[in-house]
Amino acid sequence: MAEPASTSEGSPPPAGVPLSVETDLLDLVRFDAAGLIPAVVQDAVGLTVLTVAYMNRESLQRTIDTGRTWFWSRSRAELWPKGETSGDRQYVREIRLGCEGNSLVVLVDQHGQGACHTGSWSCFDRRLAVGPGVPTDR
Amino acid sequence: MAEPASTSEGSPPPAGVPLSVETDLLDLVRFDAAGLIPAVVQDAVGLTVLTVAYMNRESLQRTIDTGRTWFWSRSRAELWPKGETSGDRQYVREIRLGCEGNSLVVLVDQHGQGACHTGSWSCFDRRLAVGPGVPTDR
Repeated sequence: MAEPASTSEGSPPPAGVPLSVETDLLDLVRFDAAGLIPAVVQDAVGLTVLTVAYMNRESLQRTIDTGRTWFWSRSRAELWPKGETSGDRQYVREIRLGCEGNSLVVLVDQHGQGACHTGSWSCFDRRLAVGPGVPTDR
Repeated sequence: MAEPASTSEGSPPPAGVPLSVETDLLDLVRFDAAGLIPAVVQDAVGLTVLTVAYMNRESLQRTIDTGRTWFWSRSRAELWPKGETSGDRQYVREIRLGCEGNSLVVLVDQHGQGACHTGSWSCFDRRLAVGPGVPTDR
């Protein structure tokens, strides 16, 4: 029998779906003097913080239009569709706006190896400091 | 019988405990041109992202020394011990450093009403956009 025509490896990645937007809230997004807003990308399943990246107005709009994360690369000064070549794409479930309008949390389904260019699932793999906290019984 | 001398309402908030630090990593923290690094504060219990705030070198050091979050208020241009007056303190369990050294994730035990000045648990209570994501079976 013939092999299947398309293997998992060869098949194209899933397309994203445009997001539904609260347009009133979109008007409240505040970009900084450089035209950027920090976006905290969080794994929608495990809730791990995956990365912190920056969006400008156009990358936010492309994220909304495609259902995948687009960022502004400050070092390369270009729009950047996350995982376009690596396959480590992020498909958006929610974008949440901070109380002051100047930061975002983006809940995603992370595909591929993970979010980090090092190959790690999260960019926050290094533990700088630890303490006991003070647990509450809430 | 006499009432207890100290009620829950009247007792002082718990003291924080100094954090244990990886000093090699502390040298890798990169502050931006304004001397700041964004800190994503995450609830250590529920893993909700509570707030995004900024630290300078001194507020990071005070956070380490006290086991509670200290930030730099960009609007008031001053060091700010979170929850000092409100009681909405954050006791640190972990500080994690991003792969490029220019962002932090701080896992905390949130006390009091929550992290947001609006009285909400999280500063990210507003949903700007929603989509289906693309679930994976990992």
